Amino acid sequence: MNPGAQHSDVPASPPLRSDAERNRERIIAAARVVFAREGLGASMASVAREAGVGIATMFRRFPTKEELVDAVFIDRMDAYADVVAAALDDPDPWHGFVGYIETACAMQAADSGFADVLTSTFPTAKALEQRRNEAYEGMVELIGRAKAAGRLREDFDSSDLVLLHMANAGVVSATGGAAPDAWRRVVALLIQSFETPARGPLPASPGHDALYRAMLRGGPAGDAAPEPDAGDN
Amino acid sequence: MNPGAQHSDVPASPPLRSDAERNRERIIAAARVVFAREGLGASMASVAREAGVGIATMFRRFPTKEELVDAVFIDRMDAYADVVAAALDDPDPWHGFVGYIETACAMQAADSGFADVLTSTFPTAKALEQRRNEAYEGMVELIGRAKAAGRLREDFDSSDLVLLHMANAGVVSATGGAAPDAWRRVVALLIQSFETPARGPLPASPGHDALYRAMLRGGPAGDAAPEPDAGDN
Repeated sequence: MNPGAQHSDVPASPPLRSDAERNRERIIAAARVVFAREGLGASMASVAREAGVGIATMFRRFPTKEELVDAVFIDRMDAYADVVAAALDDPDPWHGFVGYIETACAMQAADSGFADVLTSTFPTAKALEQRRNEAYEGMVELIGRAKAAGRLREDFDSSDLVLLHMANAGVVSATGGAAPDAWRRVVALLIQSFETPARGPLPASPGHDALYRAMLRGGPAGDAAPEPDAGDN
Repeated sequence: MNPGAQHSDVPASPPLRSDAERNRERIIAAARVVFAREGLGASMASVAREAGVGIATMFRRFPTKEELVDAVFIDRMDAYADVVAAALDDPDPWHGFVGYIETACAMQAADSGFADVLTSTFPTAKALEQRRNEAYEGMVELIGRAKAAGRLREDFDSSDLVLLHMANAGVVSATGGAAPDAWRRVVALLIQSFETPARGPLPASPGHDALYRAMLRGGPAGDAAPEPDAGDN
């Protein structure tokens, strides 16, 4: 049994298969550039244009935007999970918690696409979502340690980290190159507000289910795959 | 001298002039709906479609998006200036300051277009910018009073209110109807971070010039007026 035989549109001869692989790499490289610049709202067509491939090739390699997002951001999500792991290694739980926030927000500021990835969810981007879940478990531990050390307010909820990333994305996208470090001031203010003793009660957290629905809204607008064009690979 | 005679494309006869006025009102009403839903990024074409007028009529009444923004949001900016004035009337300076923030952020949450107006500037929208400047002077006074009362941190800068509105817009747009009150929690955290005693130093404010450039970026993307179409009013 040759598994490739199931995909009659992927030629079995080595040179063509390597064309397909080359196209795949070109599309991923182009998508990195386009998503970093425009966020995940960028169209599949503009990624194809940047890559210099036809739209049919684009959709043959990546039938949905979620599959492209998965391929493009898996490295960033790995780096993000590493940031969480490094924060957990910090012997000072509060220092680790703050370091995680500052580094993760800097990753958002550097890449509009990744800023969107951190505040959205893509249920069919399996590899990406698995890494996100691992990072999330680390974040919950980070929060628990910072609370146990008496430095993080007791009413802090893991969904507050998502809200922080949404607020940060708002500042980053509104200031852009004109005030590229403005987000640091807002993030510093928020970190100070997280520290004990709490200055007062807070409105209720939106809750995980509501926030999950909000993150689903932020997913790619799902460009539908067009009919494949036989002459284009 | 009839001032109307300068505008040869606006017919002088009363019934037609009243058609023009009716179209103007329809366009403003439609733009309120479209901007509230989609923010100022909505195109002039989609406003024309919502209003049921031709694109040439649209551009005859409002040659630039800035003129349309001016006409649509002058009432909201008046209401915003009233919020600042009411805050200044509060005998408790900190209570007035907090009340202003909560009300202004609620106005943002209720209207995506106005959320954009508060974090953008439109130099040619004269009436709007004049009201904004009046409100800004009131905000500076509000900040000064809250500091003098010993409740607002000394390193707070008026540009921090713009950053707050940018952060709030990020939360509002990312959560939308799925978690419509999530912004309240972020705003409450930020207000707590503004209160004395400050928990620590902050990264420098981006400064007014940089923030002004950032606000210019947020202005409407300036759809160019097409050639007027003689048959369309």
